[in-house]
Amino acid sequence: MSVTFAKGFRAAGVEAGISAVDGKKDLALVVNDGPLDAMAGVFTPNRFCAAPVQWTRGVVADGHAKAVILNSGGANACTGQAGYDQSAATAATVAELLGCTPDDVAVCSTGLIGELLPLDNVLAGAAAAHAALADTAQAGADAAHAIMTTDTKPKTVELEGNGYRIGGMVKGSGMIAPQLATMLCVITTDAVVTAGQMQAALAVGVDTSFNRIDVDGCMSTNDTVLLMASGASGVEPDPDEFNALVAQACATLARQIIGDGEGASHDVRITVAGATSEDAALACGRAVAASNLLKCAIAGNDPNWGRVVSSLGTVPETVAPYDPNRVTVDINGVRICDGGKPGRDRAEVDMTPREVHIDIDLNAGDAEATVWTDDLTHEYVHINADYES
Amino acid sequence: MSVTFAKGFRAAGVEAGISAVDGKKDLALVVNDGPLDAMAGVFTPNRFCAAPVQWTRGVVADGHAKAVILNSGGANACTGQAGYDQSAATAATVAELLGCTPDDVAVCSTGLIGELLPLDNVLAGAAAAHAALADTAQAGADAAHAIMTTDTKPKTVELEGNGYRIGGMVKGSGMIAPQLATMLCVITTDAVVTAGQMQAALAVGVDTSFNRIDVDGCMSTNDTVLLMASGASGVEPDPDEFNALVAQACATLARQIIGDGEGASHDVRITVAGATSEDAALACGRAVAASNLLKCAIAGNDPNWGRVVSSLGTVPETVAPYDPNRVTVDINGVRICDGGKPGRDRAEVDMTPREVHIDIDLNAGDAEATVWTDDLTHEYVHINADYES
Repeated sequence: MSVTFAKGFRAAGVEAGISAVDGKKDLALVVNDGPLDAMAGVFTPNRFCAAPVQWTRGVVADGHAKAVILNSGGANACTGQAGYDQSAATAATVAELLGCTPDDVAVCSTGLIGELLPLDNVLAGAAAAHAALADTAQAGADAAHAIMTTDTKPKTVELEGNGYRIGGMVKGSGMIAPQLATMLCVITTDAVVTAGQMQAALAVGVDTSFNRIDVDGCMSTNDTVLLMASGASGVEPDPDEFNALVAQACATLARQIIGDGEGASHDVRITVAGATSEDAALACGRAVAASNLLKCAIAGNDPNWGRVVSSLGTVPETVAPYDPNRVTVDINGVRICDGGKPGRDRAEVDMTPREVHIDIDLNAGDAEATVWTDDLTHEYVHINADYES
Repeated sequence: MSVTFAKGFRAAGVEAGISAVDGKKDLALVVNDGPLDAMAGVFTPNRFCAAPVQWTRGVVADGHAKAVILNSGGANACTGQAGYDQSAATAATVAELLGCTPDDVAVCSTGLIGELLPLDNVLAGAAAAHAALADTAQAGADAAHAIMTTDTKPKTVELEGNGYRIGGMVKGSGMIAPQLATMLCVITTDAVVTAGQMQAALAVGVDTSFNRIDVDGCMSTNDTVLLMASGASGVEPDPDEFNALVAQACATLARQIIGDGEGASHDVRITVAGATSEDAALACGRAVAASNLLKCAIAGNDPNWGRVVSSLGTVPETVAPYDPNRVTVDINGVRICDGGKPGRDRAEVDMTPREVHIDIDLNAGDAEATVWTDDLTHEYVHINADYES
């Protein structure tokens, strides 16, 4: 279903010959048929942000947009003015097809950095995608497929509010780290909401989801999360419910990214409790999530708590005050480190489940935060070392 | 030669039955026979620092120590009071053998975190090492072997000053990141220098060497660098020459760590020039050195400059001001990214040499800094996932 779950949206995913992978759908189009045309967006903070990010920031600035076109097979990042012109030309073509202006068309790209797109293919693909637009489940699924790169499966969400719907799709598998992850995400809703309301909901939703996952510590040049509202349900949502559902949509999609992390054999949930503040808990969680040694240990089914605390110990006391001698670490429910010292036997920990839970208690306060990461496997290295570039 | 290259030092390396590896030397002893007994030290900032680090900080505090005992096969980290008592007991045994006080004996340990040492073996080993003490090249080599863990080769240095000598040994291969790396390092000199002079020389030397290498982004609980002076040459060195030689000893040993990084197939030198300050250059260099994606690409012999600039782009503008459109990246001498855009063809870059040079010019100022890292290979994952714990 994906983005077509909410009423007032049509989508398409087509093979435009952009991706090097033969037969792969690589161009998606999502159109908002209204009556509203509200759009909000969150973008990568990377200073080498891609041309489509620069373009789409401008599109979203006024809170209105009619459509978004997304391609895999090329990031159009670090491509200078020529790359920006490509994004603008793509938007102009879609605008002509839809009878709107170019600044109502968002553009997203993902793939290799440093190469221009095959623009003729993109523009011909835009026409093909326009011809294929439909409000069906299949059309939403096609769009979700078309934005995949090293993803092994499409990632979508469908949520029901009180009289309105939220749908969404995301791609992302490697180059995934806060802030944001290497991902393109489009969330649609038929609720009657303003762009300001959407931007606020998205900011919170992204902060507690996409900004708390880390596959490989690498920040992308192309990250984009867009939220589009058609108002087609005619329902003005309860603001709290709407915010919660947007956050849930983000969290569900972020969880799917972790579940499809490049080469991953374990999804790792790291919860830091007993912190003096949520920021302190988050800093500790991120430090642990970034440990290659821990991630390798988990790949090898070893509940290596020494690699948990050695990462924890890198967080400065000014950032996260705690006493190392009071810290506990549970892995999959077994208190394997107690008061900074060995606790129960590591042999008691069952590491065979796909999902691994690392629960850290700093015993310094009442705040907590959760981050997600993947393990680091031979397959991750294979995907990122032995690929064809 | 190692630590026995400088006059006034005896050393030994013996098999004490601490390491799980059968037949491996795992205990080293270095004794300063004077006439001076000056010692300076630099330690891990990790908040979960190991018992021997806590002990040795106390030993070095007064600038005097007679000896250092080092073991592989166990880090004695996160072992609580019992672990600290083990370090104290080890120092007491060595002190009795040498006829000094325990607070003149430094202790270093490396290996798995979270387990106590087999203390009987350590103490018996101390006696055996004491019996084997010699000022020979072989004794120095034995000590350098005894501190190895996943290291595939011993790492030593010998430098001649004007009338005095500097020798040294280091171990370190994984869990290597600034600040400091997972490493134990002992540098000896027969120069006539004060502890204060040594501490100053070491601080600068470590900052520009061990603090600028990064194998896997993981900070250890046990990092220790000790500098011991016997004064046996009778020569008071020129302070500038002495500082430069200590820095050279550190740099040489740090370079050997990168050359023996776990699973590494390339040693990667990253130089960031044209920065507004050395700190800015260093922040950029470290961000690039920490990129798993780049490190995988290099393992696959791909000069993937997109992964260089996407890492560079994560450094906040407040830390390193520069214009992304003015940045150039040379890989092995080929300007592959020019002004933030593609430069010469990536096919021109020869990635077959072991040493890879990434030269970044921010074109924003006159400062520069160099950091070293390794590529990320299947073998790194194998070593850290499939080991026996």
